[in-house]
Parts: sequence; structure tokens; C-alpha cells
Amino acid sequence: MAQALAGPEIERLIQLLARVPGLGPRSARRAVLHLMKKREDLLTPLAEAMRIAAERIMTCETCGNLDTASPCTLCRDARRDGSIIVVVESVGDLWALERAGAMRAQYHVLGATLSPFDGIGPEDLALPSLLERAMNPAVREVILALNATVEGQTTAHYITDLLTPAGVKVTRLAHGVPVGGELDYLDEGTLSAAMLSRTCL
Amino acid sequence: MAQALAGPEIERLIQLLARVPGLGPRSARRAVLHLMKKREDLLTPLAEAMRIAAERIMTCETCGNLDTASPCTLCRDARRDGSIIVVVESVGDLWALERAGAMRAQYHVLGATLSPFDGIGPEDLALPSLLERAMNPAVREVILALNATVEGQTTAHYITDLLTPAGVKVTRLAHGVPVGGELDYLDEGTLSAAMLSRTCL
Repeated sequence: MAQALAGPEIERLIQLLARVPGLGPRSARRAVLHLMKKREDLLTPLAEAMRIAAERIMTCETCGNLDTASPCTLCRDARRDGSIIVVVESVGDLWALERAGAMRAQYHVLGATLSPFDGIGPEDLALPSLLERAMNPAVREVILALNATVEGQTTAHYITDLLTPAGVKVTRLAHGVPVGGELDYLDEGTLSAAMLSRTCL
Repeated sequence: MAQALAGPEIERLIQLLARVPGLGPRSARRAVLHLMKKREDLLTPLAEAMRIAAERIMTCETCGNLDTASPCTLCRDARRDGSIIVVVESVGDLWALERAGAMRAQYHVLGATLSPFDGIGPEDLALPSLLERAMNPAVREVILALNATVEGQTTAHYITDLLTPAGVKVTRLAHGVPVGGELDYLDEGTLSAAMLSRTCL
């Protein structure tokens, strides 16, 4: 019956939008109504922006970032520290670190973390290219900016072993109390880690 | 700094997506990463579906529904009861009633409800066309399917007065306990209305 409502074009748009993370069937319907109201302002520019992105965006062959060029803007930026490689699981993590302005260095996107349970092994991660980059004598440190989950930590150990022949320093992000976080709401592991890594004032 | 991340194309897509209801700046970023991963499956078809929708979808000149033709599919459907007009505030409400299969009749979308506080007066609603349609001798009943809010009810009273010269029966949706609803969680107004409109078993 839904088909009879407004033609297959709208139904198809709703179905596709419902597959976007953050939207479901109900919110996709609401989104389409809003897009229809803002046709000139939003729907047409959004369709065009998506078409351009689909055409032009590529994965950087060096680091795995998404950009309209390969090597990407970050890899080509001579002002960034070329002696440090920050290893992340996903482009989303890379963006998060860049937003924080945490480290103006090079990145390396793994694409996944080791997860035997999900059938994700070392061959599914961008590891050969990481080893090759770490072998470059200009590289002094590899920072493993991986999630503090079992998979993230397993991957960190695997990479530490893998990079031994490269002879680079391998570090990981500090554990501790999140800025603005309340102790009462933190788990025991985080609190213990924060206590062990306490710093002088 | 965000601009330097991945070119202006992605930033523009994130900014436009963040204006879609249900998404914000953070979820738009996550959505873009997902769309990039599913380029062939989702991003390209979605861009195309949006372009087609922006080009072809129009507002039905009779009832105000959205469709690729005017009069719309519903207005042209001869199997629907032409003697009843269901008045709704928005196309979203029309879709909700159609999904429920509540009444296979004609619709009339007002576009808004009266709201003096927001500066919305009778001239902002599709009222002249409603009166004209109600004047048609074939029309016997106008059902006001408006929200049970102050604005909805004010609009209902206004329309009831407006339609007096047409001599049609004007009805509204019943108030009562929602199907599956628990009495303990309902407000006093709904409970009183449900009690007053009790029906025989």
C-alpha cells in the first residue's frame, strides 16, 4: 500500500536513507518530508554533494585516509612531523584525533582490528604497508592509537611484535580519567590505570 | 583545521547531512564514513534517488500531497471514497493515516495549523481550496484528523465554522486510550475523554 502513496521515487529514497547510520525507517520518512520542503536549500545541494563525493573521494594509498587525492592532504603536508606514524583503526578515529589536534604527524589506517571471533585476521589489516613505512630510517616512533578494547589491545601487541625488525619506538595512548570525568562513574580498570600512571603536580 | 582533513567536498557533504532531521554534526560525520565505505551500494544510488526526487516530486494541486504527478495517485484513485475528505496538517500525517489504512477516502493537507503565537494565521493554511472542495455536492463529510493539541483543536473549530455554508457533516478523530496503552501512564484529559466516549461490548 505504501507504494500507492507517492510513487516509487519517494519510497526508494526513504528505503536508501533508512540505511544511513543514525536514521531508521521512521526517521528516514521524516527526513524525506523535510528534504522535500527544503528542495532548493538542501535536497538538490545534498544530491550534488553526494554525487561529487562518490566520484572524487578515494583512499590514500599511503595512509588509508579518505581524500580527493592520493597521497592525501595530510601525507603531502610538509609541516607535519614525518618521524612519527599514528596508527588508527578507522578513518573516523583519524578524524577524531585531528579534531583534537592531538598530534601533527603522519597516520596509518589499519581498516580493522584483530578479532578472531569475527574472522578478522592479520591479513585483513593494512600491516605490510605499515611495516614498510616503519622501516624508513626517517621514522622514529609509531604511536598505536587503538581502542582500549580487547581487540584493540590484541592488535597493539601484534603490531609491537611485527615492528621489532624496524627498530622503532612503539608507544600507545595513556589510560586514565577522561577530562571532565567523574571518578564515581569510572570502571575499576581505568581507575587503577590512572593511579599507576599518576603524574607530579 | 577540519578543512585540511579531507578536502572541502567531504566537509560540504557533512555540513549538508548535519541539517537532515535526525542527524547532527557528529552523526553526519559517522554517516559520511559509512557512505564512503558503501559507495556503490548506497552513496551513488542515494545521490541519484535524491536528484530524481528533487526533479520529479511535486505538490498535488488538489490535496497538497507529494507525488510525481498532480493530481496525485490518491486523488486519481477511483476506488477511493470521493464523498469524504480527511483534513490533515501535514503530508507526514497523511502518510501515517495511509499506513494505518484507516480510511480510503480523499485527503486535504493544510500545510500548518493556526498558531497566533508563531504568527500562523488562516491565510497560511490551504483553506480556500478546502471550502471549494467541500462545496462540491458529492462531498458529504469532512473528517478533521488534526493533532489533539491546542493548535490542532483551534484549527478544528475554525474549520468547522468555515465549512458551515457548505452544509457538510464535519467530524473529528475520537479521543481515547491508545491501543496497547496503559491507563497508569495516561493523562487525566485522555482518561476522562475515554470514559465519556465509552462503547458497549
